[in-house]
Amino acid sequence: MPMQQRPKTPAVPPPLPGGATRLFVILGDPVAQVQAPRLMNQLFHEEHRDAVMLPVHVAPDALSTVMRGLQGIGNLDGILVTIPHKFAICEFIDHPSEMVRLTGAANALRRDADGRWSGENFDGRGFVAGLHDQGHATEGRRAALVGTGGAGVAIGAALVAAGVRSLAVTDLAPDKAIELVARLDTLRPGVARFEPAINWREVDLAINATPLGLRADDPLPFDVAALRADALVAEVIMKPARTALLEAAARRGLATQPGLHMLASQIALYRTFFGLDG
Amino acid sequence: MPMQQRPKTPAVPPPLPGGATRLFVILGDPVAQVQAPRLMNQLFHEEHRDAVMLPVHVAPDALSTVMRGLQGIGNLDGILVTIPHKFAICEFIDHPSEMVRLTGAANALRRDADGRWSGENFDGRGFVAGLHDQGHATEGRRAALVGTGGAGVAIGAALVAAGVRSLAVTDLAPDKAIELVARLDTLRPGVARFEPAINWREVDLAINATPLGLRADDPLPFDVAALRADALVAEVIMKPARTALLEAAARRGLATQPGLHMLASQIALYRTFFGLDG
Repeated sequence: MPMQQRPKTPAVPPPLPGGATRLFVILGDPVAQVQAPRLMNQLFHEEHRDAVMLPVHVAPDALSTVMRGLQGIGNLDGILVTIPHKFAICEFIDHPSEMVRLTGAANALRRDADGRWSGENFDGRGFVAGLHDQGHATEGRRAALVGTGGAGVAIGAALVAAGVRSLAVTDLAPDKAIELVARLDTLRPGVARFEPAINWREVDLAINATPLGLRADDPLPFDVAALRADALVAEVIMKPARTALLEAAARRGLATQPGLHMLASQIALYRTFFGLDG
Repeated sequence: MPMQQRPKTPAVPPPLPGGATRLFVILGDPVAQVQAPRLMNQLFHEEHRDAVMLPVHVAPDALSTVMRGLQGIGNLDGILVTIPHKFAICEFIDHPSEMVRLTGAANALRRDADGRWSGENFDGRGFVAGLHDQGHATEGRRAALVGTGGAGVAIGAALVAAGVRSLAVTDLAPDKAIELVARLDTLRPGVARFEPAINWREVDLAINATPLGLRADDPLPFDVAALRADALVAEVIMKPARTALLEAAARRGLATQPGLHMLASQIALYRTFFGLDG
């Protein structure tokens, strides 16, 4: 469900958190750029839930200590996970979903009634739903995925499941790309392939799933010059909303998909996962 | 500074927390009754700080794990502490204040610029300031303190420092009361004394610093029948605002001091401690 279609904010201002407020957090490093707190707090407000989602800045070497601490907090109900923790977080999941087992990465953890933790990876489904919401098809397309980090592996899996004709995968770390292709072969054999140098003339859906673009002085993750005129360039970075890659694609007249759609389309999934429905 | 004198809420509603929000927490078990988040979030709102204070429910056997986790979070700046953690928390303080060293208890921790943690105990100063704000003197009074937990030890120390004539101390655990008296003797020798059975006829400031009154079916912490007609009965419990003890004292026509004043008077102290001034 795209953001624009969600119900309007009630006229009543949000209450300030009090002693009975339930906690949700999102872990990242860096974390100041994350958009999930804003969207989730809007949802809690609309649903009249006494709950809040907070950013938690945690460095990789502190992840174990911080996670053990967070899982010991009685009124903490859920954890979202962003860069660079989506793989390492799996160690703290008692019940991984099929998508988590397939990709080895997770972006959402929930405390179940028995006190154990379920983990899901909604990035891929959110990315594909975001494309569909914006009127972009995935079935039959020739996709190229640059970056096989926590978001990339989930997007690759969701695209293969959503019926792309082919998926070229590349990464500065070739072994990661090769491993992802092997995992995706268990879904639909032969659809994904590792391409150290992607032939952009054969691509009509080009996806940046690297962190390049978070900082103003980052190089472009790939060159848009060789893309077909009917290609779509999609981004996972949410802040800035218009990355240099999207700007370059727009200058060439290509269709673009900003990163926020991937998250906006996950809010409805989080809603169900965290039991916030009705 | 009593709550009534603080500046009025700005007309602008508080923003929802986002990715750059700074975190403060209050640890307790139970925690749903705590009033500090409401007061501190009001303060953050008035000061236009992108910060939030959240309740953190942590059982005693999880305190170490949770504290190590919280201290590993990069955007967490401060920790308040309530029942039953005020003694055990001292293990996590690098720089204890004089009051913390005297009482062995703390209720506020701050991350300093060098990444180490300072600890303070504002309960006593807050309690005495709350009395003064309400027009009740402490100097020359004959006080009786029931309960020598985390709040009690700080209140005892602040009362002795504030010039009470005498301080009778009792606790269901006599060794705790005896230990407190020994500590207070280092401040002003002979003022505090352990009294297993307090002579209420000789008391004009009677203080409940036990948790009795948090629950509706708790027995009274002491009997108000024997108190002098000019005695003041003071409470540390904040919720309910009118405990059974305060109701019984009011029925006898005695002056009463609700627990919230102790906290309201600490907000100005927290403000300075956490560097929220101007």
